[in-house]
Amino acid sequence: VDLAVLLLKCSCIRAVLPQLTNPQRCGLAASPCAQAELSSAELPFPPEFDRYLKVVEENPEDFTAWTYLLQYVEQENHIGAARMAFDSFFARYPYCYGYWKKYADQERKAGNVKMAEEVYRQGLQAIPLSVDLWLHYINFLKETADPSDTEAEATIRSAYEHAVLAAGTDFRSDRLWESFINWETELGNLVNVTAVYDRVLGIPTQLYSHHFQRFREHVQNSLPKHFLSLDEFVRLRKELATTNGHGEGEAPSEETELPPDMEDLADPAKMVTEIENMRHRVMESRQEVFSHNEHEVSKRWAFEEGIKRPYFHVKPLEKTQLSNWKEYLDFEIENGTLERVVVLFERCLVACALYEDLWIKYAKYMENHSIEAVRNVFKRACMIHLPKKPTVHLLWAAFEEQQGNIEEARGVLKTLEHVVPGLAMVRLRRVSLERRHGNLEEAEALLRDAIDNGKSTTESSFYSIKLARHLFKVQKSLQKARKVLLEAIEKDKMSPRLYLNLLELEYSGDVKQNEEDILACFDRALTSPLPLESRLTFSQRKVEFLEDFGSDVNTLVASYEEHQKLQKDYESTKRKAENGYVIRLYPFPMDFVCGVFCNVTLIPCFLQQYNYQNPWGYGQYYPPPPT
Amino acid sequence: VDLAVLLLKCSCIRAVLPQLTNPQRCGLAASPCAQAELSSAELPFPPEFDRYLKVVEENPEDFTAWTYLLQYVEQENHIGAARMAFDSFFARYPYCYGYWKKYADQERKAGNVKMAEEVYRQGLQAIPLSVDLWLHYINFLKETADPSDTEAEATIRSAYEHAVLAAGTDFRSDRLWESFINWETELGNLVNVTAVYDRVLGIPTQLYSHHFQRFREHVQNSLPKHFLSLDEFVRLRKELATTNGHGEGEAPSEETELPPDMEDLADPAKMVTEIENMRHRVMESRQEVFSHNEHEVSKRWAFEEGIKRPYFHVKPLEKTQLSNWKEYLDFEIENGTLERVVVLFERCLVACALYEDLWIKYAKYMENHSIEAVRNVFKRACMIHLPKKPTVHLLWAAFEEQQGNIEEARGVLKTLEHVVPGLAMVRLRRVSLERRHGNLEEAEALLRDAIDNGKSTTESSFYSIKLARHLFKVQKSLQKARKVLLEAIEKDKMSPRLYLNLLELEYSGDVKQNEEDILACFDRALTSPLPLESRLTFSQRKVEFLEDFGSDVNTLVASYEEHQKLQKDYESTKRKAENGYVIRLYPFPMDFVCGVFCNVTLIPCFLQQYNYQNPWGYGQYYPPPPT
Repeated sequence: VDLAVLLLKCSCIRAVLPQLTNPQRCGLAASPCAQAELSSAELPFPPEFDRYLKVVEENPEDFTAWTYLLQYVEQENHIGAARMAFDSFFARYPYCYGYWKKYADQERKAGNVKMAEEVYRQGLQAIPLSVDLWLHYINFLKETADPSDTEAEATIRSAYEHAVLAAGTDFRSDRLWESFINWETELGNLVNVTAVYDRVLGIPTQLYSHHFQRFREHVQNSLPKHFLSLDEFVRLRKELATTNGHGEGEAPSEETELPPDMEDLADPAKMVTEIENMRHRVMESRQEVFSHNEHEVSKRWAFEEGIKRPYFHVKPLEKTQLSNWKEYLDFEIENGTLERVVVLFERCLVACALYEDLWIKYAKYMENHSIEAVRNVFKRACMIHLPKKPTVHLLWAAFEEQQGNIEEARGVLKTLEHVVPGLAMVRLRRVSLERRHGNLEEAEALLRDAIDNGKSTTESSFYSIKLARHLFKVQKSLQKARKVLLEAIEKDKMSPRLYLNLLELEYSGDVKQNEEDILACFDRALTSPLPLESRLTFSQRKVEFLEDFGSDVNTLVASYEEHQKLQKDYESTKRKAENGYVIRLYPFPMDFVCGVFCNVTLIPCFLQQYNYQNPWGYGQYYPPPPT
Repeated sequence: VDLAVLLLKCSCIRAVLPQLTNPQRCGLAASPCAQAELSSAELPFPPEFDRYLKVVEENPEDFTAWTYLLQYVEQENHIGAARMAFDSFFARYPYCYGYWKKYADQERKAGNVKMAEEVYRQGLQAIPLSVDLWLHYINFLKETADPSDTEAEATIRSAYEHAVLAAGTDFRSDRLWESFINWETELGNLVNVTAVYDRVLGIPTQLYSHHFQRFREHVQNSLPKHFLSLDEFVRLRKELATTNGHGEGEAPSEETELPPDMEDLADPAKMVTEIENMRHRVMESRQEVFSHNEHEVSKRWAFEEGIKRPYFHVKPLEKTQLSNWKEYLDFEIENGTLERVVVLFERCLVACALYEDLWIKYAKYMENHSIEAVRNVFKRACMIHLPKKPTVHLLWAAFEEQQGNIEEARGVLKTLEHVVPGLAMVRLRRVSLERRHGNLEEAEALLRDAIDNGKSTTESSFYSIKLARHLFKVQKSLQKARKVLLEAIEKDKMSPRLYLNLLELEYSGDVKQNEEDILACFDRALTSPLPLESRLTFSQRKVEFLEDFGSDVNTLVASYEEHQKLQKDYESTKRKAENGYVIRLYPFPMDFVCGVFCNVTLIPCFLQQYNYQNPWGYGQYYPPPPT
C-alpha cells in the first residue's frame, strides 16, 4: 500500500488546462532558478514560433504538429520558447519520456543544470515507471556531479533507490537493476551489490535468469566476508559451525570457538571449506527465491511476450495488444498483490493512455482500496490524457456524486460539456444530477435551454420529449407536459415521436373521459405532414385504440376504412418503388417513439400482424380474395 | 324506388345454412305438389349419391365437386336426389342460371310441370337479372301452355312484363326485349309492340340502334291506326289537322271535321298524307328519345365493353375487370338514377359474387337510401356468397349495432367465429361489442376464454395483453391486470410484449414510489430467456429510465455497465453471423410491443440513436477510440 500511495503521489496532476501563453502556470517559473533564467527567456521568440504554436492550439490532438513545434524550438535554442512549448506539450502528453530528456537537454544546453534536474524530476513524477527516463536522469546526475561533492555518491544512490522503488517491479526493469548493480560493483560496494541482487532476485523480470547467473558469478568471484552483510555472515558461520562441516544431522564433535565478526578462521583448510560452504548456503537460499521467482515469471511470460509496444504512442494499438493487457491485468488482479496490480496498471496506461476503458478499469479496481486513488485516476484520465472522452468523465462525475460531492460532480459535467458541446447524454446527466438532488427547477431549466439551443429541430424535439416526461412524471404536471409537446409539434411537424408522446400523455388518464382528446391526438398525427408510413402506423394504432376502448362502433368502422385507404396508398407507393420510381421513403421509415420506454429510440412498427389485408392475427387465416 | 324495392324483394334470402339431409328445409316440401311427389322421392337414392354428397359437404367451395354431384343426379333421374343436390347447391351458388334450368328440366323430365315452374320462380327470385333464365322460363311457359287455356296469353304477357321490369334495364337485355316484341308481333298486337318499343328505346342497351331500326320498319310496315294507341292516334290527327298538311305556321284554311276514333279520312290522298305525316311525327318524337338514349349509351359504352365476363363464375376475375366494374358503378352513382345504380350493382354482383369489397360498396351505397336494403345486401353477401369472409360480416355486425340491434350483431359475430374460428379480430370485435354496451364481465370472459383456448402460447399471450389492457384501463384494476400478465409470463417467457406491458403498468403510477417494482420488471425481462437482441433493448430502456427517473446514480452507472456488456455480446454475435456462422436471431428481432399503442404490433427498436458505442445522440460526436 505504501508503494501504491507513493506511485499515485508521483503521478500527481499537472496543470488543469494548458494555457499556452503563461509559462508561470507551467509551474516552472515558481522556482528560484527560473527567475534567473527569465532574462534569456525574454529575448524575442523565434519567428516561426507563433505559427507552430497556433497549429497545436487549434488541434491539440495532432501529435505530428506537436513534434514540429518541439523540433523547431530545439533547433532555435530559445529556452523561453522551449519551455512554453514543452510545458504545454507535457500537459497533454506526459508519457513521452524521450521528450522529457530532450527538454532536460535543452536546459543543459542553455547552461541551466538545476532547471534540467527539475525537468527530470517533473518528468519522473509524470512517468515514474519509465526505466529509460530514470536511467537518463541517473546518467545526468553522474555526468553533472561535482567531483568534489562528497554527497555525490549518496545522491546517486538515492536516485537509484527511488528508481527501483518506483520502477523496479516492472518486468522490463532489468536495465535499471543492472545499472544499479554495476555502479555499486564499480564502487566496490559488494555488500550493496548483494542487497540489490537480493531484491531483484525476488522480482519477476524478463532477465531473471541472467540476474541469477550474474549473482552466482558475484558470489563465486568474491569472498563471503566481502559480499555478505555482517549479520548474514555471522549467522551462516554459526550455522555451519553447528553442523561442523559434517553435513546435516551429524552431532557436533565439540563447540569450536568462532572468531568475532568476519575474521578468518584460523585453520586455512577450514577457512576454505567455510568459504565454499558459505557460498553454497548463499546459493541454496537464493535458489529457493529464484525457483519461486521463476514460477512467477512463467505465469506471466506469455502476457509479457504479448506486449509488443510498451511505450506511449498516439498510434492505435492492435486489438490483440489490448486484449493481452486486459487479460494480464485480470491475471494480476486474481493472483498478485495490490502493489503488483497498481504497477501493472501504471505500465499498461503508459502504452494505453488513450484507451478510456483501461483507465476506467483502473478506477474500478481502486474503488475497493482507496477513494483518493480513484479520484486521482479519474483526474489524470480526464484532465490530461482524455479531455474529450465523455464516458470516463461521466463515470468520474458519478463517482463524485456517490461520494456526496455534488458540486464537484457538477463541475466535471459542466467542463465536459464545455469541451465537447452538444452531446445529449452529457446534458441529460446534468439534468438527472439536479433531479436526484431535488433541484427540479434547475433540471427543468437545463432541458429548456437544450430545447432552445438545439442545433436542429430533431434535437429540440428530443429534448422536448425529455422535458415533457420530466414535467409529467416528476413534476406531476400533465398540463405543462402537454404544452411543451404541443409547442414542439408546432416547430417540428415531422416527428412521429412527438405525436406519440402526446398520445401517451392523453392515454394515461381515463380513456373513456379522454376519448375525444385521444382521438384528436391521433387525428393531429394523421393530418400532419408525416410521411405515409408513419401515418399508417398511427392509423393502425387508432383502430386498435377504438377497438379496445372506443365508445362508438361507427367511429371504429370509419377509422378502419381510413386505414384501409392508407394501406392501399402505401402499397402502391411500395410497388412504385419496386418498379424503379424514385420514391424516397422517410429515412427512418418506422422510427418513432412509442411507449414511454422507448421515447428516445427509433422504433419501427410491423403492421403485418394486424395487417388488414390479412388481418386475422393468429390461427386460421382467410385466404385472400381472388384478385 | 319501386323497382329497387322490387328487385330487393326478389333477391330475398334462401335458406340460412344448407342442411343437406333435410329436403323440407329447402322449402319445396311445403308446397302441396311436393307432397304428391314424395313417393318418387322416397325411392332408394342412387348408389354413388352419398359419396358425391360427402365431398361437397366437406368442401363446399369446391365448385367442380358440385358439378360432379349435379351431373350425377342428372343422369340418375332420381328426383329426390336431384332436389337435395340442387337445393343445397343453390343455397351457395344461386347465380348459376344454367343449373336452374337444368333443375327445372329435371322436374319436367319427371313429369312435374308445376314443380318445374316453381323452380323457375325460385331461380328468378335468386337471380332476377338473368335474361337467359327469364327467356328459358318464358319458353317453358310457352311450351307447357295448355292450348285450351284462354289465360295462356295473359300469363305469358305477365311473365314478359315481370321480365322486363326485373331485367329490362340491363344493358344486355336486348334479347329479352326482342323476344317480347317478336311475340307480340306474331300475335299481331301492334299497339303492344309500339308500347314495348317505346319502353326499350329509352333504355340504354347494346343494340339500341338496332331496336330503333326495327322500330322504323315496324312503323313503315304497318298503318298508324294499327300500331298507334287510340290516344296517340287521335292526338296526332288533331295536331296534323291543325297545321292542315301545309306545314308549320300556315294558318288553317278551315276547320275540317275529323272522323271519330281511327276511322280513315274520307279523302284518299289526305288519308295517305295523314299516314305519312303520322309516321313522320312518330319517328320524329322517337328520334328525340333515341338521340338522348344514344348519348346515354355512349357514356356507358366503354364500361360495357370492358365487361368481358358478365356471368357468375368461381374463377377469379382479372384486376382490370374489377376496376372497370368499380369505375362503372362510380359513374352510375354520379350520373344515373337510384334504379340504374341498383340494377348495375345487381349485375355486377352476379359476375363478382365472390368479391367482398363490391358487396360492401353496395351496402354502403344503400345506406343513404334504405336500411332494409342494406340489411338485405349484407344478408345475401354473408349467408349465401361469402360465408367465410370476415370483413363483410364485421361490417354487418357493426351495421346492426349502429341500428341498435345488439343481439343481431352478436349473432353475426358468433356465427362468423363458428364458421371461421381463430381469427383474432373477430374475437376482439365480440369483446368490444360487449364492452361498448356495458357488459364488462362478458367482455372479460371472452378474453379469458381466448387465452385458455389459444392455439399457441403466442396467441394466448396476445389475448393476455388485451385482457390486461382491458382490466387496467376499463375495469380500472391494476392488480387484476398485473396478475394476468404475470401468469402469462409464466407460460410464455419469450414474449417481449408481455414484459413490456407489465412495465407500462408499473410505470403508469408514481415512478418514484414504484421505482423498485419498475426495476424488478426490467430485471425480470433481463434475466429471462429472451433473446439477446430483446434483452438489449430492455437494457437500454432500463438505462433511460434510470437516467430520467432513477433515484440513485450507483444503480444508473451499474445498469449502464450491464448494458455495455450486453452490447458487446450482441455485436460479437452479429459478427459471427456476418462471418457465416449459423446464428439465427429471434425471428422478429426487435419485435415486441412497446407502448400502449403498439401492443399488438411488432415493433423493432433502433438502438443507434442511443447507442453507447457512439452514444452521444445529437450534435458533435466524439470519434471512436482507436481500436
